[in-house]
Amino acid sequence: MDDTRRSFLAADFVQGFINYCGFEVEALKTGQFVSRLTVRDDHRQQDGFIHAGVMASMADHTAGYASYTTVTSAYRILTIEFKINYLRPAKGNLLRCRANVIRNGRKIKVVEADVLIVSQGEETLVSKGMFTQIAVPAESLRKT
Amino acid sequence: MDDTRRSFLAADFVQGFINYCGFEVEALKTGQFVSRLTVRDDHRQQDGFIHAGVMASMADHTAGYASYTTVTSAYRILTIEFKINYLRPAKGNLLRCRANVIRNGRKIKVVEADVLIVSQGEETLVSKGMFTQIAVPAESLRKT
Amino acid sequence: MDDTRRSFLAADFVQGFINYCGFEVEALKTGQFVSRLTVRDDHRQQDGFIHAGVMASMADHTAGYASYTTVTSAYRILTIEFKINYLRPAKGNLLRCRANVIRNGRKIKVVEADVLIVSQGEETLVSKGMFTQIAVPAESLRKT
Amino acid sequence: MDDTRRSFLAADFVQGFINYCGFEVEALKTGQFVSRLTVRDDHRQQDGFIHAGVMASMADHTAGYASYTTVTSAYRILTIEFKINYLRPAKGNLLRCRANVIRNGRKIKVVEADVLIVSQGEETLVSKGMFTQIAVPAESLRKT
Repeated sequence: MDDTRRSFLAADFVQGFINYCGFEVEALKTGQFVSRLTVRDDHRQQDGFIHAGVMASMADHTAGYASYTTVTSAYRILTIEFKINYLRPAKGNLLRCRANVIRNGRKIKVVEADVLIVSQGEETLVSKGMFTQIAVPAESLRKT
Repeated sequence: MDDTRRSFLAADFVQGFINYCGFEVEALKTGQFVSRLTVRDDHRQQDGFIHAGVMASMADHTAGYASYTTVTSAYRILTIEFKINYLRPAKGNLLRCRANVIRNGRKIKVVEADVLIVSQGEETLVSKGMFTQIAVPAESLRKT
Repeated sequence: MDDTRRSFLAADFVQGFINYCGFEVEALKTGQFVSRLTVRDDHRQQDGFIHAGVMASMADHTAGYASYTTVTSAYRILTIEFKINYLRPAKGNLLRCRANVIRNGRKIKVVEADVLIVSQGEETLVSKGMFTQIAVPAESLRKT
Repeated sequence: MDDTRRSFLAADFVQGFINYCGFEVEALKTGQFVSRLTVRDDHRQQDGFIHAGVMASMADHTAGYASYTTVTSAYRILTIEFKINYLRPAKGNLLRCRANVIRNGRKIKVVEADVLIVSQGEETLVSKGMFTQIAVPAESLRKT
């Protein structure tokens, strides 16, 4: 991946819903993407934990961009489906998500994404997802 | 479910992340919950579609409150895991989510949630999720 | 679907692992497939319940053939992924599986499959799965 | 885990449906279980690949026994749900499954299971599952 593509992907990650929620890019390379969220009260649910939807959104988007690193600019990535397990109630102020493409098919991509609480430099796994995505020609989306 | 509990659940639904995103309550009864979202640009992703994370958050929360209708005020509902399929790219301005408890165990609840685009009074199914949740004593959460 | 195709699908369903396990065809039409299993001790697990793997296999295969009814003989169906919830321990002597295609994309198919215990003419839902499959040209499989 | 318990688990693994299919134990320790299958024609599907149901059954059972290593003899493990991705069509003559408990809750266990083709000493990942299980008192099952 050249620097132009890398810069494009890092900037492209943060827009719309993702920008609204405050997710940020930490790192990326081919087949991998890492993101971060500084947790605010707006990210919590009725019992004070980080909302499952925040972690699902973070994992979905980070997994999607992990796949996006594997295709050229002629393609877009759409989520077909995902499953996510919540391993413990998530408390804390900093979330990190690490996504890795585990099957890089030409069309079908399978990605794992871990969501971690970061506290005093230590990471604790709080949720883990498995994502199936499809690479579609960018121009096919313009027509829909 | 008495009116006091119903009012409590309808008000309790809208707080934190859910309030921030703009999700609203449409209807509820024991084992069922219906919610709504007026879609804004803040809910979209890089290609202009409604973000998968928005629909996942909506489905998770609505499914959680469908289960919450089945327990007394001594219990809280936590998501153990879910899986969601995205059936088509979601365009449009109004989302509805319908969640139904399909297995109401004492501890373990299984809930289906459909996310629908509403346009000119017609609903189109855009994503469908299956959720596993656990009912935990409210006081056990206070201790964590 | 003409009678020739229907007969082909009904016969094709029962071979290899499926034949070995004893699954049978009950009914099919475009987008739907129904199968049956007369439960033997060989289908149970260590506590006497029907094994989760038996129900997963039944649901996967029946869902696959529900999709297979939607394509021509030039295509095969492969499972990309599935998720299945077990709603209660499964006891009994007769299983039925009902599979319905809920999103019939040209390539990607999404199918729901219910597994039911049949006892004295009454059906009880014991597990429910959601399947993502892909239609691939038959000749592409010959090459692998 | 003492030797008596280890021997019990290794023997207990192989019965009913699992014995019928031919799955065998390779190794176990607390929180981990490894199994094996010598593939026969009875394990294949209509296109000659190993049936998705075989891999799902193997992963479910191996994941269940990975959790079973974490409890005393007073408990049994039941599958609540699982999700499995099939990464490539599975050809070959020897399957291995490696299951690891990634969240060992007192009641709720979350387990990952990889299914691998073994050929000439090399392993290739062909499917990957994530399982949610519940530990229940053995005596509660006797009553159902």
